[in-house]
Amino acid sequence: MSNWNVYLSGEIHTDWRDQIVEGVKALNLPVTFSAPVTDHAASDDCGASILGGEDKKFWYDHKGAKLNAIRTRTLIEKADVVIVRFGDKYKQWNAAFDAGYASALGKSLVVMHDPSLTHPLKEVDAAALAVTETPAQVVDILQYVILGKL
Amino acid sequence: MSNWNVYLSGEIHTDWRDQIVEGVKALNLPVTFSAPVTDHAASDDCGASILGGEDKKFWYDHKGAKLNAIRTRTLIEKADVVIVRFGDKYKQWNAAFDAGYASALGKSLVVMHDPSLTHPLKEVDAAALAVTETPAQVVDILQYVILGKL
Amino acid sequence: MSNWNVYLSGEIHTDWRDQIVEGVKALNLPVTFSAPVTDHAASDDCGASILGGEDKKFWYDHKGAKLNAIRTRTLIEKADVVIVRFGDKYKQWNAAFDAGYASALGKSLVVMHDPSLTHPLKEVDAAALAVTETPAQVVDILQYVILGKL
Amino acid sequence: MSNWNVYLSGEIHTDWRDQIVEGVKALNLPVTFSAPVTDHAASDDCGASILGGEDKKFWYDHKGAKLNAIRTRTLIEKADVVIVRFGDKYKQWNAAFDAGYASALGKSLVVMHDPSLTHPLKEVDAAALAVTETPAQVVDILQYVILGKL
Amino acid sequence: MSNWNVYLSGEIHTDWRDQIVEGVKALNLPVTFSAPVTDHAASDDCGASILGGEDKKFWYDHKGAKLNAIRTRTLIEKADVVIVRFGDKYKQWNAAFDAGYASALGKSLVVMHDPSLTHPLKEVDAAALAVTETPAQVVDILQYVILGKL
Amino acid sequence: MSNWNVYLSGEIHTDWRDQIVEGVKALNLPVTFSAPVTDHAASDDCGASILGGEDKKFWYDHKGAKLNAIRTRTLIEKADVVIVRFGDKYKQWNAAFDAGYASALGKSLVVMHDPSLTHPLKEVDAAALAVTETPAQVVDILQYVILGKL
Amino acid sequence: MSNWNVYLSGEIHTDWRDQIVEGVKALNLPVTFSAPVTDHAASDDCGASILGGEDKKFWYDHKGAKLNAIRTRTLIEKADVVIVRFGDKYKQWNAAFDAGYASALGKSLVVMHDPSLTHPLKEVDAAALAVTETPAQVVDILQYVILGKL
Amino acid sequence: MSNWNVYLSGEIHTDWRDQIVEGVKALNLPVTFSAPVTDHAASDDCGASILGGEDKKFWYDHKGAKLNAIRTRTLIEKADVVIVRFGDKYKQWNAAFDAGYASALGKSLVVMHDPSLTHPLKEVDAAALAVTETPAQVVDILQYVILGKL
Repeated sequence: MSNWNVYLSGEIHTDWRDQIVEGVKALNLPVTFSAPVTDHAASDDCGASILGGEDKKFWYDHKGAKLNAIRTRTLIEKADVVIVRFGDKYKQWNAAFDAGYASALGKSLVVMHDPSLTHPLKEVDAAALAVTETPAQVVDILQYVILGKL
Repeated sequence: MSNWNVYLSGEIHTDWRDQIVEGVKALNLPVTFSAPVTDHAASDDCGASILGGEDKKFWYDHKGAKLNAIRTRTLIEKADVVIVRFGDKYKQWNAAFDAGYASALGKSLVVMHDPSLTHPLKEVDAAALAVTETPAQVVDILQYVILGKL
Repeated sequence: MSNWNVYLSGEIHTDWRDQIVEGVKALNLPVTFSAPVTDHAASDDCGASILGGEDKKFWYDHKGAKLNAIRTRTLIEKADVVIVRFGDKYKQWNAAFDAGYASALGKSLVVMHDPSLTHPLKEVDAAALAVTETPAQVVDILQYVILGKL
Repeated sequence: MSNWNVYLSGEIHTDWRDQIVEGVKALNLPVTFSAPVTDHAASDDCGASILGGEDKKFWYDHKGAKLNAIRTRTLIEKADVVIVRFGDKYKQWNAAFDAGYASALGKSLVVMHDPSLTHPLKEVDAAALAVTETPAQVVDILQYVILGKL
Repeated sequence: MSNWNVYLSGEIHTDWRDQIVEGVKALNLPVTFSAPVTDHAASDDCGASILGGEDKKFWYDHKGAKLNAIRTRTLIEKADVVIVRFGDKYKQWNAAFDAGYASALGKSLVVMHDPSLTHPLKEVDAAALAVTETPAQVVDILQYVILGKL
Repeated sequence: MSNWNVYLSGEIHTDWRDQIVEGVKALNLPVTFSAPVTDHAASDDCGASILGGEDKKFWYDHKGAKLNAIRTRTLIEKADVVIVRFGDKYKQWNAAFDAGYASALGKSLVVMHDPSLTHPLKEVDAAALAVTETPAQVVDILQYVILGKL
Repeated sequence: MSNWNVYLSGEIHTDWRDQIVEGVKALNLPVTFSAPVTDHAASDDCGASILGGEDKKFWYDHKGAKLNAIRTRTLIEKADVVIVRFGDKYKQWNAAFDAGYASALGKSLVVMHDPSLTHPLKEVDAAALAVTETPAQVVDILQYVILGKL
Repeated sequence: MSNWNVYLSGEIHTDWRDQIVEGVKALNLPVTFSAPVTDHAASDDCGASILGGEDKKFWYDHKGAKLNAIRTRTLIEKADVVIVRFGDKYKQWNAAFDAGYASALGKSLVVMHDPSLTHPLKEVDAAALAVTETPAQVVDILQYVILGKL
């Protein structure tokens, strides 16, 4: 049974990633997880911190976003399955960008969001192989696609 | 001088597409424009209208979003340059999805948005070859990259 | 408005292709249609007829199927949209093969079949951007994705 | 001697997969096998079971078929050789879909079926590098292509 | 009916290319033919003639072969169908190289040779969608795959 | 005879492009030429001019270089043959970058430079199908690969 | 230091493969070698032996050549470097086919042959990154490209 | 946590590679480094040394550059991140070539150079996800993208 690479993109303010990782661990599934940097401050400041500050906010953000892209693109390209969760706050355009990026690369896309977001996320959901609401459903999906068990 | 295919993705509530098309026409540039369906009602209802209604909102939206995907994916894949505009309202996750999709396909990405959106759009901007604020700038860019004139 | 290439795969015993072609013509849509050879006898005999007969049925069929593959693969690869219709008779494995082939190439797949076939076709439908029942629906889809009109 | 990934697609009502796996094990060949979920009930019900029930049969099947696609596409893409067996019952359009999908990805395709199916499978056979009738032949092929021994 | 690009590779000492071109012209098929430079002397001397002579035969040949590669690779990549003819003289390794090159690019390969060459050409034939003996057969194939007529 | 797309990259201070274009025109060859913006000032200032000035030289240059990339990448991707000329002044890293970019895309690469630059350009030359010294040689190559005439 | 996959294609009547393997072993280089089946009889008869005999020589050869293709294509696709040796006897079109196949896939191609074959092999040599005469040179190349030592 | 492949291209006269390797080792990051042959003499002479001398400097260099290409292209293709450093001496066109090559393959590109080189390197920098000045910054970037720590 070969290993599965699963990338966990999107919302960073709740513990959904931990829940998935714990659930998968409990089932002993052969999954390697990866994710963007989820430390919000580090993610915002990495560019200026490493490469030097900027007066203009645009370039401050630009340098950071590009460093993060080294991580996110590399890991998405290595992933078999990309899970993208949308929360109820913030613009989360990076999550939708990742979903589009993964979709164009032919990755299996799984989306997680509250049903209240169905309408604005319909294009993203249309590209997905599963639309979930909870981490437990993602764990069930991984168990099913890897072990064939319900 | 060969023809350029330019896809205009994103916000559908202002006349930014018309301004770009008019500006490019005035300059007589060899550009073929394409875009998603910008009639909001048609875009929402197309699935149920053609393929039959659905009780559940999720499937109603799903059928429509997939029909729209036939158009958007085909045209993005044929595009040389993909322009994505973000407005100040709505979630616009489909715009960010298109940006990610175009980026993974190696298309030249140009983003248009108000500077107030710089922070939440930093990952999208980081993937772009130009970040603009107005349709006039997009026209200037097309003139420059096609004719070499400022 | 650029041209769309649409490949019509599958069932060859009813006039569904003609209905779609006529419908699209009436709407004056910029579509170029292509299809497999729909003359059943020619399709079966082409290999032996051109390249010489065979005693074994397997090789007789094999030579013909490969000649047909020159046509079908070339035209599917040039298509933007691949329509695959399943009828109520015969094995039609070539139709399902074409659907899988088109899907792996990232083509927009539209399937047409009677609702009674939903269960055995669920994997094919899952790969499609639209599941239709009639030629009229396909015409409506082409009108919508090309002109944006319902 | 590197490892070979072999995907076993198609018919799920006889023990042909077990026969191949046993035969290869007896020869100690470096092969990792993978396959779709072969528990028919689980395969049919997985979508509704994990993601929630549906009133309409179409969506019930649709959700399940998409979950299965996460598994099948991922494993076919990782495979070096894809074996597809067609039995004498059922429509088996998913098997033909897999064959087309594998073929477009450039995988080495091996088909297994009774000679009585030669005519309706001629397009699938034409895309294959071997057409077999028994699991023992598949084992012999794997031994030959991996060890060079007859 | 769209245009077909057909590349005619291989043997340059008989008039097989002319026969195919004439036959296709008589049928008024929408085919654009291309081929390597068939003037043997020009093909051998082009490198030294344009880029300067060489004392060593190896470099003399090398410069010429690379210039020819600009033509052959460009045209093979644009081709839908690649016809490769093997004659009864010379090594003709460039013909077999072209066949391998076209095959890896997924082109439809048609081989033409005398039955006496079946054994040494078996690997090339195994990659082809048709193995022919005469230009007339190639014309028949093009008529069939383009018009569907026998 | 199909059209050839030829991209002329590199040195912008002599009239080598004009010489090639004139030579090809005199021979009536079916070639469409493209090139980067060769107006040095426009090329340097385009970013700030269209998108707004920058205090830091790095970002001033960065914005311009990215606009130029929209043109250069699009045109190189459409090219069949990429000619790159290196002159005797300046760093010309963009020329070498274009050569590497074109090479990774599998384009036919032709390099033009004085023999005095052979050693530092050896890696670039090693990726080329022809190494020339004069525009006349490039014209001869295009005549040869398109018409087969010396 | 990562592992290198090296495929040894071509002539099967001398011990050149053993010499390379021994030489590389003596240097303790991290290389995994692969090759076609070099047992001539097995290679010729494998198809009929496993899949059943054929009256016609063409199909007898065809079945065998396709089984061999499972091995050769899989291993060439996994290779980093493809070495192809041409001897002084036989047609060896399969060797040239492999060279073309490897070249189109972008593999690093190394050719080995006697200088007397320079002229008929010029197109193959033109696609190679090294043209050698002896197994010792191939060993030296592998040592150099892996360890950087002469 | 999966392994990262990092290729270190460019300037070979200072110890920047060692500094990066040491820094990464001290942090215990899961990185496998690769690089071109940095022994200048070996790199220049490898072709003639292994394959035989040449009277003409062009071919002497050519043979060496092609051997080096076996190493550099193979390792760049396996890399997740390509670091390219430009020093203050020499033409360094091979470094810019590598940057273009890596960029076209979609690798994450990180450039290192003194700010005094900003203008001539603007096209290379425009393709990079980070522009650095010191080995320490590269180490910080690798730590951040792999561990998420600043």
